[in-house]
Amino acid sequence: MIVVIKQNVPKERIDRLIHRIEGMGLSIHYSEGSSTTILGLLGDTSRIDERTLLADDSVEYVRRVTEPYKAVNRKMHPNDTVLEVAGRKIGEGYFNVFAGPCSVESEEQILMVAEAVKNAGASFLRGGAFKPRTSPYSFQGMEAEGLKLLMEAKRQTGLPIVTEIMSEKHLDLFADVDIIQLGARNMQNFMLLKELGRSKKPILMKRGLSATMEEFLMAAEYIYAGGNENVILCERGIRTFEPMIRNNLDVSAVPLVKTHSHLPIMIDPSHAAGRRDMVAPLSRAAIAIGADGLMIEVHNNPKCALCDGAQSLDLYQFTSTMEDIKKRVAFEGRELQTAL
Amino acid sequence: MIVVIKQNVPKERIDRLIHRIEGMGLSIHYSEGSSTTILGLLGDTSRIDERTLLADDSVEYVRRVTEPYKAVNRKMHPNDTVLEVAGRKIGEGYFNVFAGPCSVESEEQILMVAEAVKNAGASFLRGGAFKPRTSPYSFQGMEAEGLKLLMEAKRQTGLPIVTEIMSEKHLDLFADVDIIQLGARNMQNFMLLKELGRSKKPILMKRGLSATMEEFLMAAEYIYAGGNENVILCERGIRTFEPMIRNNLDVSAVPLVKTHSHLPIMIDPSHAAGRRDMVAPLSRAAIAIGADGLMIEVHNNPKCALCDGAQSLDLYQFTSTMEDIKKRVAFEGRELQTAL
Amino acid sequence: MIVVIKQNVPKERIDRLIHRIEGMGLSIHYSEGSSTTILGLLGDTSRIDERTLLADDSVEYVRRVTEPYKAVNRKMHPNDTVLEVAGRKIGEGYFNVFAGPCSVESEEQILMVAEAVKNAGASFLRGGAFKPRTSPYSFQGMEAEGLKLLMEAKRQTGLPIVTEIMSEKHLDLFADVDIIQLGARNMQNFMLLKELGRSKKPILMKRGLSATMEEFLMAAEYIYAGGNENVILCERGIRTFEPMIRNNLDVSAVPLVKTHSHLPIMIDPSHAAGRRDMVAPLSRAAIAIGADGLMIEVHNNPKCALCDGAQSLDLYQFTSTMEDIKKRVAFEGRELQTAL
Amino acid sequence: MIVVIKQNVPKERIDRLIHRIEGMGLSIHYSEGSSTTILGLLGDTSRIDERTLLADDSVEYVRRVTEPYKAVNRKMHPNDTVLEVAGRKIGEGYFNVFAGPCSVESEEQILMVAEAVKNAGASFLRGGAFKPRTSPYSFQGMEAEGLKLLMEAKRQTGLPIVTEIMSEKHLDLFADVDIIQLGARNMQNFMLLKELGRSKKPILMKRGLSATMEEFLMAAEYIYAGGNENVILCERGIRTFEPMIRNNLDVSAVPLVKTHSHLPIMIDPSHAAGRRDMVAPLSRAAIAIGADGLMIEVHNNPKCALCDGAQSLDLYQFTSTMEDIKKRVAFEGRELQTAL
Repeated sequence: MIVVIKQNVPKERIDRLIHRIEGMGLSIHYSEGSSTTILGLLGDTSRIDERTLLADDSVEYVRRVTEPYKAVNRKMHPNDTVLEVAGRKIGEGYFNVFAGPCSVESEEQILMVAEAVKNAGASFLRGGAFKPRTSPYSFQGMEAEGLKLLMEAKRQTGLPIVTEIMSEKHLDLFADVDIIQLGARNMQNFMLLKELGRSKKPILMKRGLSATMEEFLMAAEYIYAGGNENVILCERGIRTFEPMIRNNLDVSAVPLVKTHSHLPIMIDPSHAAGRRDMVAPLSRAAIAIGADGLMIEVHNNPKCALCDGAQSLDLYQFTSTMEDIKKRVAFEGRELQTAL
Repeated sequence: MIVVIKQNVPKERIDRLIHRIEGMGLSIHYSEGSSTTILGLLGDTSRIDERTLLADDSVEYVRRVTEPYKAVNRKMHPNDTVLEVAGRKIGEGYFNVFAGPCSVESEEQILMVAEAVKNAGASFLRGGAFKPRTSPYSFQGMEAEGLKLLMEAKRQTGLPIVTEIMSEKHLDLFADVDIIQLGARNMQNFMLLKELGRSKKPILMKRGLSATMEEFLMAAEYIYAGGNENVILCERGIRTFEPMIRNNLDVSAVPLVKTHSHLPIMIDPSHAAGRRDMVAPLSRAAIAIGADGLMIEVHNNPKCALCDGAQSLDLYQFTSTMEDIKKRVAFEGRELQTAL
Repeated sequence: MIVVIKQNVPKERIDRLIHRIEGMGLSIHYSEGSSTTILGLLGDTSRIDERTLLADDSVEYVRRVTEPYKAVNRKMHPNDTVLEVAGRKIGEGYFNVFAGPCSVESEEQILMVAEAVKNAGASFLRGGAFKPRTSPYSFQGMEAEGLKLLMEAKRQTGLPIVTEIMSEKHLDLFADVDIIQLGARNMQNFMLLKELGRSKKPILMKRGLSATMEEFLMAAEYIYAGGNENVILCERGIRTFEPMIRNNLDVSAVPLVKTHSHLPIMIDPSHAAGRRDMVAPLSRAAIAIGADGLMIEVHNNPKCALCDGAQSLDLYQFTSTMEDIKKRVAFEGRELQTAL
Repeated sequence: MIVVIKQNVPKERIDRLIHRIEGMGLSIHYSEGSSTTILGLLGDTSRIDERTLLADDSVEYVRRVTEPYKAVNRKMHPNDTVLEVAGRKIGEGYFNVFAGPCSVESEEQILMVAEAVKNAGASFLRGGAFKPRTSPYSFQGMEAEGLKLLMEAKRQTGLPIVTEIMSEKHLDLFADVDIIQLGARNMQNFMLLKELGRSKKPILMKRGLSATMEEFLMAAEYIYAGGNENVILCERGIRTFEPMIRNNLDVSAVPLVKTHSHLPIMIDPSHAAGRRDMVAPLSRAAIAIGADGLMIEVHNNPKCALCDGAQSLDLYQFTSTMEDIKKRVAFEGRELQTAL
């Protein structure tokens, strides 16, 4: 349920109204735009009589939100959410490229890639320390040791870090990580979502392989409902019947998220197709359709990568792809975030 | 099987080789690029011994094409195919917008829409006379009468016509149509494909709702195998599990077609999502990823359209979408084809 | 819209009512059950005022049918439709096995298979003369010659024939065929559906690879709307993401069809999985869930079959599978139809 | 890699061989059938030279397992695995029905349902204490309190308990649970899989909504790789394009699992379709195709259920469905496991 406040109502009257609503056992999502202030009422609003709210002089009108996602719903928050993480802005008007290897493999490797992606224009270093692998016999990542190497790469390059969490019990290890990634296979790991909701860390949440848009937004709602409003969505391809590529990038997700939610949404073209030659064309489509950023796998030596080599760009390919990306981001009138 | 000819081999020696190969019961797809001439051998090549071909002095090398699509395979024809239809070029370097109503409904309607889309920058008028409808009780199109109205619109505006065929027995009625559209539900109507192969008309072939890329190219191969080399592919969304939109536009189809085939490929953003608000963003993605054109539904009064009103742009929306399209096509360095 | 007639209303009064409704421009689907007579009104019923029908003394009540499928809707016809074709009953209470090779390949082959499937307990001989093939270079069937061989097999064994049509222009060739099969790829070939509606031949209509249940029933509605009430549905697997099998047999289709329609539905386990070893287990599931029959591919020498050998049973395998089928059909209390 | 032991080799020589192989850094899956003993070698077998194994006199032959699933592969263990849990046998030859409510809601409710399903013939009581819900605002289960009520129901009825775990940190709470269920959305929650591998509890692992068969078996491989060989698979419907039902039950999963693995597989017809009227027909198909059991939702008052009421049978419906199930299980020659 949203309560739209009349224009020019003094702050103390709004506060009084908020206090009254909280007394009804609800919590409030407060959204102040340039001309409109909206109170989003979260919790069981079914027993609230709209007339008791309308009776308040501050209230312009009251509307129920029929979608199951409430806090992440654009109706609750008409303006785009723009996050600020480690000095970079993420969301409408800004464009970020998160780049780095699928897995951290060694100090030498991560430092070399970090330096290269920084120079090419990436704003964040991505790299996996805990790796979700289909097989228990595959390399499972360097784990805590990998996180340390990422921190060393951050120290040396100044690039903030994005890396994936696989269990709530590792949360303490992620204290210095800038953005915690939640993988596609954990999008509906509800216990982990709840823990991430209790954290205040920015969360990059990937869409499940066959998650509907509603399920995608509901997973973000879990994080919001826990009190964490720092969520970035990421589309990474959906599972279909096509054997030529690993997944089909669903570019429709971008305008659908923009219509129904205020959250930023990025695109991962590397995992989508699982093919190096698709990264550049899918990136172009992503920028044009309005994605807020890209997440690209880059490796110093893709042929020898311990994971996902077939989809990784080498340092040279990434640099030249970034040249194209820069021109396109400028064409769209957006500001590329880079190393500071 | 492809036979690559040595450089500077005189034409008569190539002709002699062709004659010899035809004598083996095969037909030839001839492709002459700036530096390479390639003979594509079509038919049952399993009994051909490569050595008998290599023994010919004109032959540089011989390679078997493992994919089941042969004539439409880029290996047979390394350069992009560019068609010329009614004075417009279709394919690499050029960009076309086919626009018009889902159905021809009346002379007044089609003339009004034709005039508007011409002025906005469309190169072809699309409009349905024979309509494939899920229900036998829905409006089935104006049929032969609709084709006549399209011809009248062509006479008055000079716009060439794209319209859908639903049965081989109607082929004579399509004699003055510029491009015959084959609908998604008929992509594997093999008898119709064979008839279209015997025709010389350019064919706009839509991808089936759940056709793999290989099946898509194999359907085009049917038309080629019949002798018609004027095929334009069109991606229009694939069926998935997502209920918010009718279909998910599969932009990956564009780079995949460009990699594996030499045929032009357009995108239909209107049918893909089935929602008017998705047409502009999907069009942007299509242009950026390298599609050779767009097919957009436009109606003078979408609310009263006899079919697919929810996805049709009105004349004003189309005109403003075209302004955006023109800038993007120019940015990509491609030449927009328009009314002559 | 359905009109339920009061009990014990004399026939002439019902006829008068029918005459009156036809005068409104509608056609009637008449269904007489043991205790209830129902008139199904087909056509544009939106302008009919229910009260003018309720005013008739014969009318018990009137109800609008909200589903887009009308004539094939169970609401129009509460009892199961049971067809009688060449002396065999198809539908509730009866069970049929249609068996034979994917393609007719020679007189010797089809006669040998026909004799064997007859002896094993099949009620119809299936065999393809016109073959829908993904590749234009694959064997396309023996066409008219294949139909003649099927007729010869029928003459010698007495087994009626099921074979696939691919174009309305071949309809005359199918005059002596007992059941015309419409293939999955033509399920929404609306022109062919209309022609089959004008025919009086029983039609075995396969579900499209990604057709929803509603689209499946709407395709049958096309045939009914043309005047042909002899339709048998056939589920043959849907396209999903699973690479181990060609398609996933959707057994849910059987209870869904039985709930929403009165038409018989068979299952094709051979095309579903595309693997011989799956035919017997899928057949067991089909019988248990209430399918009205099975369509099984049988070949005298699967290793050398010109098409679909990997999924064909050999004569011995079919005979032993039939032993299992017979026990299960008896367990379900249904009557196996066999050679007469 | 599997090592097949010659017949009549004394146990101590096999032990010596095992010791030698373990010395190479591999672990052993030991499978002793009536006539064959097989050693399954787990770990990185790529550096093992087959000849050094063949040189051992006890060894009949050595074969590499090309599938990525090793320990759960039927090649490692040709006989079906039959588990014994709380005195009931699960696997080939036996048939179990796990029944109970989606959620434990109160002591009265769970006791009433437990008593009823026991009397009807269920062998295990299922009930959710921790509930994975799409919405953070939906009832999340009674959690630890729910587990206590399940234990009370077990004490009073003697029925062992199956209930779902959602986080590795709850594992201690599940000490008295007989079978731990892993939900579809957690099938690739690899950290949880690893913890369940370290446990010795029997695990009922549901297939993810869009998991391929290979991914399904690989998830079971994670549990095996951790040392827990008590895994029961459960197919519960896959996500497709069909809107009439929640998911399409994939009965093909049963013969595919039986071909490629030795693990038992059950079917959950309640979650598959999400419709009460589909439970009985899907159960019939499941029994006929060879599933080792069913998992059915039963509620004393489905209309008021806190979750999934639409798919729950009431006590009367369950009892009559069980009558049908008993006859069918007997027909298949399998032994129904019931209350002791």
